[in-house]
Amino acid sequence: MNNNNFIDLGEVQFDIGREGRCGFPEVIYGEGKSQDTILKIFRAIIKHDIDGFATRISDDKGIFLEQELSRDNIKFSYNKIAKTIRIFKQSGGQSVTRGKVAVISAGTSDLPIAEEAKETVLWTGAEPIFIQDVGVAGPHRLQAKLPLFNDADTIIVVAGMEGALPSVVGGFVQVPVIAVPTSVGYGASFGGLAALLGMLNSCASNVTVVNIDAGFKAGYIAGLIAKRAARNCN
Amino acid sequence: MNNNNFIDLGEVQFDIGREGRCGFPEVIYGEGKSQDTILKIFRAIIKHDIDGFATRISDDKGIFLEQELSRDNIKFSYNKIAKTIRIFKQSGGQSVTRGKVAVISAGTSDLPIAEEAKETVLWTGAEPIFIQDVGVAGPHRLQAKLPLFNDADTIIVVAGMEGALPSVVGGFVQVPVIAVPTSVGYGASFGGLAALLGMLNSCASNVTVVNIDAGFKAGYIAGLIAKRAARNCN
Amino acid sequence: MNNNNFIDLGEVQFDIGREGRCGFPEVIYGEGKSQDTILKIFRAIIKHDIDGFATRISDDKGIFLEQELSRDNIKFSYNKIAKTIRIFKQSGGQSVTRGKVAVISAGTSDLPIAEEAKETVLWTGAEPIFIQDVGVAGPHRLQAKLPLFNDADTIIVVAGMEGALPSVVGGFVQVPVIAVPTSVGYGASFGGLAALLGMLNSCASNVTVVNIDAGFKAGYIAGLIAKRAARNCN
Amino acid sequence: MNNNNFIDLGEVQFDIGREGRCGFPEVIYGEGKSQDTILKIFRAIIKHDIDGFATRISDDKGIFLEQELSRDNIKFSYNKIAKTIRIFKQSGGQSVTRGKVAVISAGTSDLPIAEEAKETVLWTGAEPIFIQDVGVAGPHRLQAKLPLFNDADTIIVVAGMEGALPSVVGGFVQVPVIAVPTSVGYGASFGGLAALLGMLNSCASNVTVVNIDAGFKAGYIAGLIAKRAARNCN
Amino acid sequence: MNNNNFIDLGEVQFDIGREGRCGFPEVIYGEGKSQDTILKIFRAIIKHDIDGFATRISDDKGIFLEQELSRDNIKFSYNKIAKTIRIFKQSGGQSVTRGKVAVISAGTSDLPIAEEAKETVLWTGAEPIFIQDVGVAGPHRLQAKLPLFNDADTIIVVAGMEGALPSVVGGFVQVPVIAVPTSVGYGASFGGLAALLGMLNSCASNVTVVNIDAGFKAGYIAGLIAKRAARNCN
Amino acid sequence: MNNNNFIDLGEVQFDIGREGRCGFPEVIYGEGKSQDTILKIFRAIIKHDIDGFATRISDDKGIFLEQELSRDNIKFSYNKIAKTIRIFKQSGGQSVTRGKVAVISAGTSDLPIAEEAKETVLWTGAEPIFIQDVGVAGPHRLQAKLPLFNDADTIIVVAGMEGALPSVVGGFVQVPVIAVPTSVGYGASFGGLAALLGMLNSCASNVTVVNIDAGFKAGYIAGLIAKRAARNCN
Amino acid sequence: MNNNNFIDLGEVQFDIGREGRCGFPEVIYGEGKSQDTILKIFRAIIKHDIDGFATRISDDKGIFLEQELSRDNIKFSYNKIAKTIRIFKQSGGQSVTRGKVAVISAGTSDLPIAEEAKETVLWTGAEPIFIQDVGVAGPHRLQAKLPLFNDADTIIVVAGMEGALPSVVGGFVQVPVIAVPTSVGYGASFGGLAALLGMLNSCASNVTVVNIDAGFKAGYIAGLIAKRAARNCN
Amino acid sequence: MNNNNFIDLGEVQFDIGREGRCGFPEVIYGEGKSQDTILKIFRAIIKHDIDGFATRISDDKGIFLEQELSRDNIKFSYNKIAKTIRIFKQSGGQSVTRGKVAVISAGTSDLPIAEEAKETVLWTGAEPIFIQDVGVAGPHRLQAKLPLFNDADTIIVVAGMEGALPSVVGGFVQVPVIAVPTSVGYGASFGGLAALLGMLNSCASNVTVVNIDAGFKAGYIAGLIAKRAARNCN
Repeated sequence: MNNNNFIDLGEVQFDIGREGRCGFPEVIYGEGKSQDTILKIFRAIIKHDIDGFATRISDDKGIFLEQELSRDNIKFSYNKIAKTIRIFKQSGGQSVTRGKVAVISAGTSDLPIAEEAKETVLWTGAEPIFIQDVGVAGPHRLQAKLPLFNDADTIIVVAGMEGALPSVVGGFVQVPVIAVPTSVGYGASFGGLAALLGMLNSCASNVTVVNIDAGFKAGYIAGLIAKRAARNCN
Repeated sequence: MNNNNFIDLGEVQFDIGREGRCGFPEVIYGEGKSQDTILKIFRAIIKHDIDGFATRISDDKGIFLEQELSRDNIKFSYNKIAKTIRIFKQSGGQSVTRGKVAVISAGTSDLPIAEEAKETVLWTGAEPIFIQDVGVAGPHRLQAKLPLFNDADTIIVVAGMEGALPSVVGGFVQVPVIAVPTSVGYGASFGGLAALLGMLNSCASNVTVVNIDAGFKAGYIAGLIAKRAARNCN
Repeated sequence: MNNNNFIDLGEVQFDIGREGRCGFPEVIYGEGKSQDTILKIFRAIIKHDIDGFATRISDDKGIFLEQELSRDNIKFSYNKIAKTIRIFKQSGGQSVTRGKVAVISAGTSDLPIAEEAKETVLWTGAEPIFIQDVGVAGPHRLQAKLPLFNDADTIIVVAGMEGALPSVVGGFVQVPVIAVPTSVGYGASFGGLAALLGMLNSCASNVTVVNIDAGFKAGYIAGLIAKRAARNCN
Repeated sequence: MNNNNFIDLGEVQFDIGREGRCGFPEVIYGEGKSQDTILKIFRAIIKHDIDGFATRISDDKGIFLEQELSRDNIKFSYNKIAKTIRIFKQSGGQSVTRGKVAVISAGTSDLPIAEEAKETVLWTGAEPIFIQDVGVAGPHRLQAKLPLFNDADTIIVVAGMEGALPSVVGGFVQVPVIAVPTSVGYGASFGGLAALLGMLNSCASNVTVVNIDAGFKAGYIAGLIAKRAARNCN
Repeated sequence: MNNNNFIDLGEVQFDIGREGRCGFPEVIYGEGKSQDTILKIFRAIIKHDIDGFATRISDDKGIFLEQELSRDNIKFSYNKIAKTIRIFKQSGGQSVTRGKVAVISAGTSDLPIAEEAKETVLWTGAEPIFIQDVGVAGPHRLQAKLPLFNDADTIIVVAGMEGALPSVVGGFVQVPVIAVPTSVGYGASFGGLAALLGMLNSCASNVTVVNIDAGFKAGYIAGLIAKRAARNCN
Repeated sequence: MNNNNFIDLGEVQFDIGREGRCGFPEVIYGEGKSQDTILKIFRAIIKHDIDGFATRISDDKGIFLEQELSRDNIKFSYNKIAKTIRIFKQSGGQSVTRGKVAVISAGTSDLPIAEEAKETVLWTGAEPIFIQDVGVAGPHRLQAKLPLFNDADTIIVVAGMEGALPSVVGGFVQVPVIAVPTSVGYGASFGGLAALLGMLNSCASNVTVVNIDAGFKAGYIAGLIAKRAARNCN
Repeated sequence: MNNNNFIDLGEVQFDIGREGRCGFPEVIYGEGKSQDTILKIFRAIIKHDIDGFATRISDDKGIFLEQELSRDNIKFSYNKIAKTIRIFKQSGGQSVTRGKVAVISAGTSDLPIAEEAKETVLWTGAEPIFIQDVGVAGPHRLQAKLPLFNDADTIIVVAGMEGALPSVVGGFVQVPVIAVPTSVGYGASFGGLAALLGMLNSCASNVTVVNIDAGFKAGYIAGLIAKRAARNCN
Repeated sequence: MNNNNFIDLGEVQFDIGREGRCGFPEVIYGEGKSQDTILKIFRAIIKHDIDGFATRISDDKGIFLEQELSRDNIKFSYNKIAKTIRIFKQSGGQSVTRGKVAVISAGTSDLPIAEEAKETVLWTGAEPIFIQDVGVAGPHRLQAKLPLFNDADTIIVVAGMEGALPSVVGGFVQVPVIAVPTSVGYGASFGGLAALLGMLNSCASNVTVVNIDAGFKAGYIAGLIAKRAARNCN
């Protein structure tokens, strides 16, 4: 497949060379797109037998798409909390597991973003290790879970409020920590700004940061790292 | 002494009722005051036999005041790193120790603010416990020092960058943590804003916050807590 | 009870060692948690006979939880204005009064945050003194109320708009003032930012600050100070 | 004189119709202008026999202008702290006193801005009442000075840090309070932003605000109010 | 009436000494107060025969209060666009006209704030001159209206977006311009911040500023200026 | 027609001299205006036989206006996605095409703003070239479309998120690029601030910027450039 | 010359295809480059006989480069106020005049940025019309100068403080207004932010904006517009 | 070596367990530390035979440390542009090459940060590929260099101003892009904020971000990724 191919769908120019150039297919950002536009892209994806993935699918769009895909007997997985839909390659042949990614959340309220990250990791073909509610106010909880993720290729840490967990996790591990600030909090959290700034200024040298609530991006980058780490080793 | 007395020095109205109303005498904020003005206030303080304290004394003002006070045989203590001068009650009768305050800093670069806090604690008559460079990137360092401050009446935590240390300390102790964000850092630390926001959003419920680089304020409030805790119990 | 124990409830790791380590049990932050998750935690709390406390309980969650707890004959107190629920130790044996905390609000619109602070103080076992609507535009109102709180161990001041009240209160008292900025205001109040910055820059040395609308945090810290002050004096 | 006249000096178009249109002549903002340009404007002012006024004159420019004006036997007044120069109408005939303006500062460090306001009030022909260092931390100081300014036509309040003084003054008086936030402070004062926001959100209804450090503007507006109030009453 | 009197209504301490101290009675800020609380204050106002004024009355509260006041045969004026209610002194004896205030708006969308300013001016007893939609993009419109307000004692200019109108008006008049930034605009207007900053930095020396959307405050201060200007001259 | 004429419609002063002074007639900004006010302006426009244009017409106002205009047999064009209504000169004689303007959008979610720009270009009489969804993540898509717009007189680039597309387009063309940041994005896009700052700092020298979501302004300025370029050359 | 050529100078990849692709050659941004690096680029420019242009040349670099270029007998023009150096094509054959660009500044302190814009216009081969100090506080000054620029192809307006001048100019003209906010001002001008936001929110539809202090960019874009307008008309 | 060991040097608690826990030894952040403190840490590093690394070494500290280390015959490498010093393990046995990291800068002015990244990569034992000045305004330059880094394990992209380069690079590669915003720029770059926000909002899914000017952090994380990728494959 030519890496510079794209399909002209009118308001969408779907980039089918993305997987060749970037390692994974183009992903559909659901916000601001009508359900009809998303369905149109899904149909192009299915026709070209690509591993489809859509994020930020609101509940009403989700119900509509679930119905349409079910009617057409398409294999897919819809995660309501993550607000994501994965469309499986209709030719079968799912991606084999490529590396491990830990997804750690600081608090129960961070769940939707942690789920988005986990779904993305699954879509990249890596194996997620999912650990919840181990924020710094009860530090023994994190330490109790350390053995679960000590062989991950990279670690996603999802946290709102002051966003201190990535720094703490960073002090225990030898792999990159991808920090995801969330908009969980109130007052001077300013919609996640406090967590974002905290993570950018982490005194742990192995912490890198993505946008507020960007569970998808963290999962995508983690998938790339895991794939690279597992390249000629599996 | 009337709690509503003040001395009219022209550009300064020195509040000699402050100790009666607020527990400690008025403190001199050195920034934006000329060395002559500060000296004029010092002389009023000495005349009224008050425990004097001045903060934010730049090096050149410090040298000048040191010379003037020495010439007059005044008992004082000048801390160049903290940029503070304490004027001791010329009548003698230093304050007895009233409670204990831990002063903990995250990194070596936070030293000047930690020193300012320590000097203020000394001036309030409480006993400071001073612990340096135990930031979260090396978490075992903090744990090794825990026994040193487990009987403090309150804990001042001084940290720049992402300001995560107060949250971590907060998870181990039963007393208020007074967090002091510092302007240590670069880029998106925005002069201490990142640390300030982090501390305000701490998930540890016992963390309260003062202004960026406000070692003095933390020491003052800690002194009040320690004094209250030690009230009629010593 | 082991200070490092926690209960694994899936999306929640409830920290039952919190009281041992930090002086008070873990508190439930209601925002972003489903009513079912909160109920699950309440049941764990009741089972372990802990003084439970939940904040930021929206009206619909409140009604649901009220019904469920009533049906189970649990002793609790639901404050709709404060949006809090206290679960009383089923074994009886309420905390004895430990110190006094004044809770002062600047304006009528600050009531919900002042109520949250008051409920938290009650939960910590301290005695609240509640004073409303004494903002600086009518300064004689505050002075008329001064005798009511002159023996408090600490003073919580709740204020929105320009947040000047803590500075004014600070000038009259010998104990720490815990300032709570609220999001009350409009335009350049920027959701409480104006009050927050004002309080952080207070020229009164005894003013410390918590997050915008953080009535809970102020109450918690005040409870710790009161408890410490009352330690071996009651 | 035609209200729409101006003098073309090349890089400056000096507006000599300003007094006719706006009540007072055009004022020279010294920042970013060379000393030669300022001198050129001064000479045009002298030639047209206008009451000249220049602000933000740095020390080196001030020394230069002082020398030049002295050499030419021009009547002027240079205030080094205020960084202002007033050029008196060479025809004599100084403005008679038109109303009274109180200029009140919160702290000693606010002096330069308070002086700028005072000089501007003098230039407008109103009588200034100057009161220093009566910030809210020592509230009795303000109350002791109240009788000095109870007949002012308007009150300028100069304050940095949290900028609470205008709200407090506002609660005692029946005339407009013109609040001048200053850049005095550190950390989260953000160069005067905290004071500015505090003043804009004042709960006192009679507080209006000018730019940070804008002593000149406050003096100018106060002069207009005083002039109007004294119109047909003197 | 004692200037330091207030009525204790529980959640409200109504300041009945306000008129004596500040020139006008206390005003009710409607936001965040229940309709029952507002009615309770109205009844106290009526009982004490004060000129009542309430702002930020949402439509539903307005309808409720309108019904209640009508039922009790109270004289009042409810302005739905301004969201204000004036309660007239039941003893009759309305305030005589004291000075003139121009209220000028830049665009049609600024109407609600301009109406709030106008209602406040009426309540202070001054005479408003109301001029709409004369923004700077069509400068001849303002010039055509200049004769209408050339004898005003002060001028309120209400503008959103870039907030340039006060600067332009300021260049034509000899009285203070009270600039009211509005939240009208989109994108980088940031809820009125652009207009606010523009007005604070006005190159016209006679422009002073109040909070975003603070039509009330502008009207109140204008009322004070007009009253002072008309003092013993009518 | 006198360039300084305007029609006084009460809350609106419609500027009918705008076309003579500024090249195009006054445009109606629909936000914050009632549907009745907009209709009143439309009727004045029709009476004066002007090319009318209204932006930011919400769906409910659009339906109302569509009905009213249809009933009166007015020629108009309503674009629901762009939220614009064009009223055609009832005398016929549409503007002839004056130059070409490319309108390029980065993503499908930017469509409404791109449509607003396109409608504005049409209203100015220029010919729009419309290209969608060619963001930088799939750079070959833009290059494939380059031949379509290589003779445009100016290029409007509409982009949200990081707003990088204008810089990239700017590197390929010899005409001004008018960049329109959109509020498309989440988290640290801060409502379009990220895209706005990115575009202002573009390293491509030919990129100029309008407000966030200001499709109208971009179209208007592009129309002026195209008209000038086509001036006496067609 | 191949449009995709560039010269590899080590730390610089000088783009000699820029003129072919973008209409004007690559420009040297002097900040952050050593004088030796700039000289190295100048020599490449001279060797390839390109019209060179460098901006943001600090005084010390300027003196060095002036000496070096003089020694080599290079034709150049150094403008100390604008901080720019133009290197003339050594082959002669200067660009003929292509269109007219007005450069208007609001105040004397904006001169350096206005000069940078003027120098850039000269470099693009267009004819600049230079008008200074016509800010909105004296509106008759602008009107007196209108005849001077009524045939410009575009107008650059340079203004600091509230940045209102572009809106006012925009109301009088039929060509695009390129607004350049400057960092002139103090306090809440926040380094030009106030002017930038004001210009972005201009109610005049023909105002587009460049970065703060970006005289160069305004001149470059104006040059492109003028060139296009003059294309087949001169 | 015990992973929880640290050396108590007074103001420094040097963490010698860092390499065991985190993969690389503790690094010295030079800002805010005296040259004597840094030398003291260097001596501890040498004594424990660790690969030392110090960043943000100002020129004067650099000269001092260079002299001291030279006198002691220590093997080290001082990079003045990067402001870094590497201390080589005195036992010899340099780290073997572990993976490849491309370091790409957008402009010549970004050089110091790119050099810091490169030095850090070298210190981690990975092989850097260094590519300069390939910003998006001349897009062919990047494409010409693509073959040089198509086998890198990860790519560091250093860019100031609008920070668009990472998005463009991201569209061509299958590995993570670590974006480093720099403070290069002026005006609305706000010290690197524009670039930071742009990178956080990148539409390329493989872009992750570190702090402004954090060349060190990018290099450290890149080193971890490269090491993991090269793990058991070399």
